[in-house]
Amino acid sequence: MQIISEEQSFGGTQGVYEHASDACRCSMRFGLYRPPTVTPATPVVFWLSGLTCTEQNFITKAGAQRLAAELGVAIVAPDTSPRGDDVPTDPDGGWDFGHGAGFYVDATEAPWSTHYRMGSYISDELPTLIAAEFGLDTRRVGICGHSMGGHGALITHFRCATRFVSVSAFAPIVAPTTVPWGQKALAYLLGENENTWAGFDATALVATSPTAAHILIDQGSADPFLDDQLQPQRFIDACRRVNQPLTLRMRDGYTHSYYFVASFIDEHLRHHVDALTAFADGA
Amino acid sequence: MQIISEEQSFGGTQGVYEHASDACRCSMRFGLYRPPTVTPATPVVFWLSGLTCTEQNFITKAGAQRLAAELGVAIVAPDTSPRGDDVPTDPDGGWDFGHGAGFYVDATEAPWSTHYRMGSYISDELPTLIAAEFGLDTRRVGICGHSMGGHGALITHFRCATRFVSVSAFAPIVAPTTVPWGQKALAYLLGENENTWAGFDATALVATSPTAAHILIDQGSADPFLDDQLQPQRFIDACRRVNQPLTLRMRDGYTHSYYFVASFIDEHLRHHVDALTAFADGA
Repeated sequence: MQIISEEQSFGGTQGVYEHASDACRCSMRFGLYRPPTVTPATPVVFWLSGLTCTEQNFITKAGAQRLAAELGVAIVAPDTSPRGDDVPTDPDGGWDFGHGAGFYVDATEAPWSTHYRMGSYISDELPTLIAAEFGLDTRRVGICGHSMGGHGALITHFRCATRFVSVSAFAPIVAPTTVPWGQKALAYLLGENENTWAGFDATALVATSPTAAHILIDQGSADPFLDDQLQPQRFIDACRRVNQPLTLRMRDGYTHSYYFVASFIDEHLRHHVDALTAFADGA
Repeated sequence: MQIISEEQSFGGTQGVYEHASDACRCSMRFGLYRPPTVTPATPVVFWLSGLTCTEQNFITKAGAQRLAAELGVAIVAPDTSPRGDDVPTDPDGGWDFGHGAGFYVDATEAPWSTHYRMGSYISDELPTLIAAEFGLDTRRVGICGHSMGGHGALITHFRCATRFVSVSAFAPIVAPTTVPWGQKALAYLLGENENTWAGFDATALVATSPTAAHILIDQGSADPFLDDQLQPQRFIDACRRVNQPLTLRMRDGYTHSYYFVASFIDEHLRHHVDALTAFADGA
């Protein structure tokens, strides 16, 4: 693992690191914020970013380090896809699939299946690396994300709730099997047989795999992707049918930007720290 | 004046606006954060950014909107130079003079004197525009900045202390007449006669024009520009000689980045709001 940068931030350290990923078969970068004091009890939250992002967007724009330092929580901010000249990207040159748009699943279809294994990378490889390199306990962590990363946070929680015990999202894609962004990406990554897609769709997953976690979602009412790509009502209805605990707040006038994320990230961090601390207390 | 963008942020509005500048004879953009409630008593702070920046760096990376909303303070974040195809830039193609590097002075030398009039723009034109367009009182404001913008904040205060009544800076260029960045820019903008430069050098200005303001400066100890370009001890010594109130804090391990700015921006906002409120109370 290589240090790309380390910066003092609110008394802790905002780092960016690079390593050779077994899952993705390429070099991968991630951000890690470590609060001023790190102990074996330091809670860890994963942040998954949205379409077109790298590890930089969240760490430079969300302003999360201030409260993370105060609460003593570490934040892992991975890249959003495999990258490199060897990694195929959108044949149409779009920004909604390929580099910067890995959708947090393991591809089964060629040529994507060689590198596009963000599911395993986020669920297994990266937590193991973080634990080994930084002495953080990643056996039980929180997961949070924005847009495509909100989709990633939700499906990673439902698919691996023993590790990702708390979950929240900003403006998530909640039903990728039924909206254009998700349909395009899942057709590439998982193939045209839509029966295989449900395992990576939060609205479908909650129907079969509800959890004890209280899910927190914030959604801007002025989000330009609200009606076509996000459709939060689908998830509200699905959670209600199975009594999945959910708080989904429509935030009046907010858009899809990091100004929206920054405005409410403190509440999400508190949500995760409260859940992780309660879990530790009860364990 | 044209609205480029307006985003909800912590219950207020982060806007970016563009207007035809009389001072700079080109289109200029600026950021303005308005807190949730704006009254005639809303304090206003100007933020001046450093080399290579636009109006975007501060508004996306400093995380100032959170406390600005809480304290009810507006923040004006101008661009750092005139721009456009008609505006000459560094003949050597450098990033330390020209576009993105106007040094907050009025040029006297051709070809720079046509557009490079950031001194008048910041001191007069922009405050007048902000007052007219947004109903904010800009007769007495605070001014703060980073690096080249720290230089700008300090000289603007010393040259116009009746309007810019409170001042603070992050890692400012305090003595541009004696360091490479300043010498290069001032030679272009003001000509080779160095006698004219002192009026735009904070360390020289404080010797002749000390003020009643308590100046706040933060400086990172791991700043790569500390020894060659910043040299804060020059300003400390000059302030001491004339009893200019100054608090200059060396921040252990911090660099020159916006992680440094973000870590301490809250204290600077409180510094300005306290000073502006005290001024209003005493008026």
